Amino acid sequence: MRPSGRQPSDMRAVTLDRNVAMKAEGSCIVAYGNTRVLCTASVETSVPGWLRGKGKGWVTAEYGMLPRATGSRTRREATAGKQSGRTQEIQRLIGRSLRAVVDLEALGEVQVTLDCDVLEADGGTRTASITGAYVALADAIKWMEERKLTKGQVLRDSVAAVSCGIYRGTPVLDLDYLEDVEAETDANFVMTGSGKFVEIQGTAEGAPFSRAELESLMTLAEQGIGDLSAMQKAALGA
Amino acid sequence: MRPSGRQPSDMRAVTLDRNVAMKAEGSCIVAYGNTRVLCTASVETSVPGWLRGKGKGWVTAEYGMLPRATGSRTRREATAGKQSGRTQEIQRLIGRSLRAVVDLEALGEVQVTLDCDVLEADGGTRTASITGAYVALADAIKWMEERKLTKGQVLRDSVAAVSCGIYRGTPVLDLDYLEDVEAETDANFVMTGSGKFVEIQGTAEGAPFSRAELESLMTLAEQGIGDLSAMQKAALGA
Amino acid sequence: MRPSGRQPSDMRAVTLDRNVAMKAEGSCIVAYGNTRVLCTASVETSVPGWLRGKGKGWVTAEYGMLPRATGSRTRREATAGKQSGRTQEIQRLIGRSLRAVVDLEALGEVQVTLDCDVLEADGGTRTASITGAYVALADAIKWMEERKLTKGQVLRDSVAAVSCGIYRGTPVLDLDYLEDVEAETDANFVMTGSGKFVEIQGTAEGAPFSRAELESLMTLAEQGIGDLSAMQKAALGA
Amino acid sequence: MRPSGRQPSDMRAVTLDRNVAMKAEGSCIVAYGNTRVLCTASVETSVPGWLRGKGKGWVTAEYGMLPRATGSRTRREATAGKQSGRTQEIQRLIGRSLRAVVDLEALGEVQVTLDCDVLEADGGTRTASITGAYVALADAIKWMEERKLTKGQVLRDSVAAVSCGIYRGTPVLDLDYLEDVEAETDANFVMTGSGKFVEIQGTAEGAPFSRAELESLMTLAEQGIGDLSAMQKAALGA
Amino acid sequence: MRPSGRQPSDMRAVTLDRNVAMKAEGSCIVAYGNTRVLCTASVETSVPGWLRGKGKGWVTAEYGMLPRATGSRTRREATAGKQSGRTQEIQRLIGRSLRAVVDLEALGEVQVTLDCDVLEADGGTRTASITGAYVALADAIKWMEERKLTKGQVLRDSVAAVSCGIYRGTPVLDLDYLEDVEAETDANFVMTGSGKFVEIQGTAEGAPFSRAELESLMTLAEQGIGDLSAMQKAALGA
Amino acid sequence: MRPSGRQPSDMRAVTLDRNVAMKAEGSCIVAYGNTRVLCTASVETSVPGWLRGKGKGWVTAEYGMLPRATGSRTRREATAGKQSGRTQEIQRLIGRSLRAVVDLEALGEVQVTLDCDVLEADGGTRTASITGAYVALADAIKWMEERKLTKGQVLRDSVAAVSCGIYRGTPVLDLDYLEDVEAETDANFVMTGSGKFVEIQGTAEGAPFSRAELESLMTLAEQGIGDLSAMQKAALGA
Repeated sequence: MRPSGRQPSDMRAVTLDRNVAMKAEGSCIVAYGNTRVLCTASVETSVPGWLRGKGKGWVTAEYGMLPRATGSRTRREATAGKQSGRTQEIQRLIGRSLRAVVDLEALGEVQVTLDCDVLEADGGTRTASITGAYVALADAIKWMEERKLTKGQVLRDSVAAVSCGIYRGTPVLDLDYLEDVEAETDANFVMTGSGKFVEIQGTAEGAPFSRAELESLMTLAEQGIGDLSAMQKAALGA
Repeated sequence: MRPSGRQPSDMRAVTLDRNVAMKAEGSCIVAYGNTRVLCTASVETSVPGWLRGKGKGWVTAEYGMLPRATGSRTRREATAGKQSGRTQEIQRLIGRSLRAVVDLEALGEVQVTLDCDVLEADGGTRTASITGAYVALADAIKWMEERKLTKGQVLRDSVAAVSCGIYRGTPVLDLDYLEDVEAETDANFVMTGSGKFVEIQGTAEGAPFSRAELESLMTLAEQGIGDLSAMQKAALGA
Repeated sequence: MRPSGRQPSDMRAVTLDRNVAMKAEGSCIVAYGNTRVLCTASVETSVPGWLRGKGKGWVTAEYGMLPRATGSRTRREATAGKQSGRTQEIQRLIGRSLRAVVDLEALGEVQVTLDCDVLEADGGTRTASITGAYVALADAIKWMEERKLTKGQVLRDSVAAVSCGIYRGTPVLDLDYLEDVEAETDANFVMTGSGKFVEIQGTAEGAPFSRAELESLMTLAEQGIGDLSAMQKAALGA
Repeated sequence: MRPSGRQPSDMRAVTLDRNVAMKAEGSCIVAYGNTRVLCTASVETSVPGWLRGKGKGWVTAEYGMLPRATGSRTRREATAGKQSGRTQEIQRLIGRSLRAVVDLEALGEVQVTLDCDVLEADGGTRTASITGAYVALADAIKWMEERKLTKGQVLRDSVAAVSCGIYRGTPVLDLDYLEDVEAETDANFVMTGSGKFVEIQGTAEGAPFSRAELESLMTLAEQGIGDLSAMQKAALGA
Repeated sequence: MRPSGRQPSDMRAVTLDRNVAMKAEGSCIVAYGNTRVLCTASVETSVPGWLRGKGKGWVTAEYGMLPRATGSRTRREATAGKQSGRTQEIQRLIGRSLRAVVDLEALGEVQVTLDCDVLEADGGTRTASITGAYVALADAIKWMEERKLTKGQVLRDSVAAVSCGIYRGTPVLDLDYLEDVEAETDANFVMTGSGKFVEIQGTAEGAPFSRAELESLMTLAEQGIGDLSAMQKAALGA
Repeated sequence: MRPSGRQPSDMRAVTLDRNVAMKAEGSCIVAYGNTRVLCTASVETSVPGWLRGKGKGWVTAEYGMLPRATGSRTRREATAGKQSGRTQEIQRLIGRSLRAVVDLEALGEVQVTLDCDVLEADGGTRTASITGAYVALADAIKWMEERKLTKGQVLRDSVAAVSCGIYRGTPVLDLDYLEDVEAETDANFVMTGSGKFVEIQGTAEGAPFSRAELESLMTLAEQGIGDLSAMQKAALGA
């Protein structure tokens, strides 16, 4: 029995609210249950040095957590003087995931930065960030298209993410914090709207897992991300 | 004529929404027009080293700005590896302002940290932070009182803040971003609910100002903070 | 056709040389073809603060690359003033992988640090590090057992790792640098000697991948890690 | 009664010694009683990036304290690896204060850096720094004028500063360290030679203060800065 | 011919002014010609961690240069965020040199920190620092003796330093800045009052040097340090 | 009697193994007894900013120690966030020593970086680094000459280094770790193949030393470096 009373294949309530940051070219507050992340997309005309003059753009991400997104206050990374290894790992994952569906040549020599700032943390902040950042990115691309700033079709597909895990012996979809702490195995899946994998990260937190267990998590993820992709599509009004 | 069409002594629309962060002991989203700041109060049982064992508590503040709170993206301080001088100056001001109305002995050996994170910036983020942080602090003190964790009356008064300035030759209340950029003189006032000054910071951005001009700004500030104090009282349901 | 002329399911020549660092409690130089990593295990009697007094130990890893392990010189991280996100991601992975086969209570209140320093880099440095670090760890545990410093059976299993990828449309085992740069999909697998998964990280570098493709990579990994586990066993003389 | 025996409106003995650093374009050791600060002005031909090519100059300041300027040794900021929030706040104030009397266009594309290094600290280091830095700046401008490097009248006015406070219930001028520690209210005033305000920073250290109290501090400051301006004029031999 | 017109074996004018910092337990401004360094000695009751509880003390040094001690402004190390390699090398040398004449057991569990801050730099700042720091240290030890804080004779000897070099083919004593820049060989000597060597650092800046050349520099140094030791003795009133 | 049973004028067994790093333009593992250092030479086409466009090159060095080169694990400098003062001092010494035998104009606008990474530390790591780095450098110059990248004879001489010390009253050559810890005086000598001095650094660790003692160390060094130079010649000439 899951702490929330959900069935193994139930996701939490998901919402995607667009246009929540007045100044950003795209923005979205994504909620997976009590986890809430503010995602903004910023279009900037300078690209990293190694890309300059190549006619290609870049998509990158930064991740942060407000100090009191968590049960006890987390130290602010700006005060600590650096981003933790965990933060860097997450923001690298978000950036890679989004780039997987972007045609960087069509984007033109432009950088889009996705800032994912966690307002409330209850498990799944990195997967929610990816799902919400895609919506903010899509809006920013639309903003660019309206100004004829792109060089063709930028988005090749949509992308969304969810975590799955073995909780008390049962494979379950979309772990919340209480489940995450206790799960034997924890896996994050990033998939496209067309059902292909962009990233899979599975970790044995307790006992190592079998191939069969991994297969069952994949099946849950395929279903969950199918639903998330539909919600993204609906939110974007397409 | 002000860009917003306001009269010289008009404040922007102010809102104070409490209990916006599930996990914090107190929280508030304060808006001064389009400026919005999320303030959370965190009660922690450890105090700074130099206070340990003295039976007194501490109130401190940290300030941050989400990268896309601003018109063009601002670099994340966690990435830059340090807080800017401006950020440190602001968070020191917020902390001092709140401590001015707190009885640190009544607080007991506890630290309350006020995190003020700017969601949208349109001028006045430091003054809005003080006004909102007071509400979050008051809720955190209430939370402590309900658990009998305090040693007497902690809050001696309320505290709020507003900026004033000379804009195109006219003293005006509560500068927004467009006014702030252009103002000849910019002053921040922090006052208690009982009408006394906690902090006054006036700066000649263009031409130096006369004592008479400063007096007129003080008068505007007294009126504005009077209104803000009433709103705080109302929001806190007293 | 692979650049090295290998068959899709061929690993590079693997060697595991033990006792290469005179002062370490365990050490190993692991080679996967031209990739060579020096792994040392250091037994220290202090554990991280949050574990103190709990009677449990800790296993952690640090990863580094000599500046000229690479084709063009890489900037020394000590000069740069911090470890890159990539370095942190890798050392966190190595640490997690080893802890998956360690009984931290049997270890006692001791920390074992595995330092993995890449002498030559030709693809697969993180997977070679895991395989070599296990050997160094096993020797350090033996060193502890000889001194009766453990509290029971510390190692529950062995652990080894390999990368697989889709190279020019074909699933191949153990990518070298030339393949790694070009691979459409790149996946790292960490498995135990008993054939269970500890970690799986698959990333679409080019096009997203299908479940069937992932399955074929898993099958290659199971075979490769089976061989690596046997080599570890042989090297450790068991 | 003040610890030094001074009357409430008495300043400490003030001296301004020019040309104390052989290599600087302008320099001054300023003393307010036992507080002594070495101020140097350095003329450099490069301006900050955002000013380049605009034909305008910049005036900025840096502040430091020798480790043994204080009663017990203060940690060197170069060792600590960063400037404290207090240091940054002070040097930003000094820079703003000087820029208030400088015509940056007449300066031409040149940066003048004022270094204020406290040799002995006995209260009022930031106000003494401003008063002394103005003298060093005036000498550096003279140096530039002699070389025909300016584009018109650079200095529009002089600038000086003093602190005032409520000490044991009485408004007093120019707090020394013993008074500063105990003062209920502490205010720093920066004014021009022509009697206008450039900056005012008043802080309630103990109880909040009334408008009447602030007015009395202003009156003291106007008198004190009048005297300081005359001394600057005399020192500069005008 | 030396730029200053000095004979090869002439030192610059040397002065040692004591008691120049009101708050320090010992202090001295040392001048070697135009090079001037403020040296303060601070007695602190805490020692480094690794010495705690051993009944022994420690003597250490820190070195800094005011930004405008040099012909063109040098960047402040506190702003740069770290001390340069050169600074660290110099302060390590000063500390070692002083410890060579101190009985750390007689000192008791106390740390004396010598801060050497260069006010004007014209070559020889590190050697002047050692000579001046010894005087400040001697005064601090006297201060301790007057309070009966020592456990016996702390100073076993005096210590002073000078640089020598091969300038345009001729061995010369006490290089000034113009000579230092051009010297083929540059050597720093640290010697005790009784004529023994504490440290010798010789570097070929241009062509490598012969043993005979090094011998001639040693002879110059012995003479120069003999004079410096006498001046220290005189300054300390012994 | 020396701990190793060596005679006072005996060096440890020295080996110089070339071409140990596949990708470097020159490389060498140097051993002085149990001390082993991997030296690589990297030829890069960019020079430091202050040398750009002057047609001259630069030779520089970086030094590091693997965490478990030492008896107990040493903290990784990349984790600490900076290089220690000791590390910086050593790498500056290595760079200076090599530049003393290089014609930077003949090198052309190229930077050669010598990385000296200590694999095992048993005393003398800095002197071994210099001796080994010279061999790596010579190979890198040969590599450049084969590609006609130099502008004349780059190497004017060879360079090697050794430490000497007063151990239990006797001057001895090539201190190992046990001797180094206990030596009263410790001196590092860097000399050219033609028998001239490049650098000499002598430090009294215990009692100050006499000129006669220094002379005896010099004589030992001349002999030892004579042998090392012959070994370098043999290693390179082979």
